Amino acid sequence: MKARVHVTLKPGVLDPQGKAIEHALGTLGFTGVEGVRQGKVIELDLAETNPAQARKNLHDMCEKLLANTVIENYAIELDGQSAP
Amino acid sequence: MKARVHVTLKPGVLDPQGKAIEHALGTLGFTGVEGVRQGKVIELDLAETNPAQARKNLHDMCEKLLANTVIENYAIELDGQSAP
Repeated sequence: MKARVHVTLKPGVLDPQGKAIEHALGTLGFTGVEGVRQGKVIELDLAETNPAQARKNLHDMCEKLLANTVIENYAIELDGQSAP
Repeated sequence: MKARVHVTLKPGVLDPQGKAIEHALGTLGFTGVEGVRQGKVIELDLAETNPAQARKNLHDMCEKLLANTVIENYAIELDGQSAP
């Protein structure tokens, strides 16, 4: 089963990478870019075939390793379906 | 208009970050993880309101700055709609 986890900085947390991209886009002549935030996407191949159990495992993985929940949010997508 | 760009390593390109995550998940006791790849997600706020023009601009941004097209693929999502 394929899963995808998006890890993004919480609103209000400073994102220097995003600011750097925004600035670089401006210098390249792209106008009308009003904000950029950069996050991570982690794609996993899981042996688990039960979607409910897979989602539970992914939730645990995010809490323990994939995301720093003090400053980051995460969203889990299983086979193209986002979390309910 | 909100847009999201996924930048992922092409298949076959070595992904040490993904391997590190896979290994760390194993040591934390998560079994059944058969593969991990890490990519980037870039969220942009655009002033452009025409979806076709916005998609064209995003395509140019990816080719020029956001992705290294030698080793990376990109996918553009506009307001939750992925590319056709």
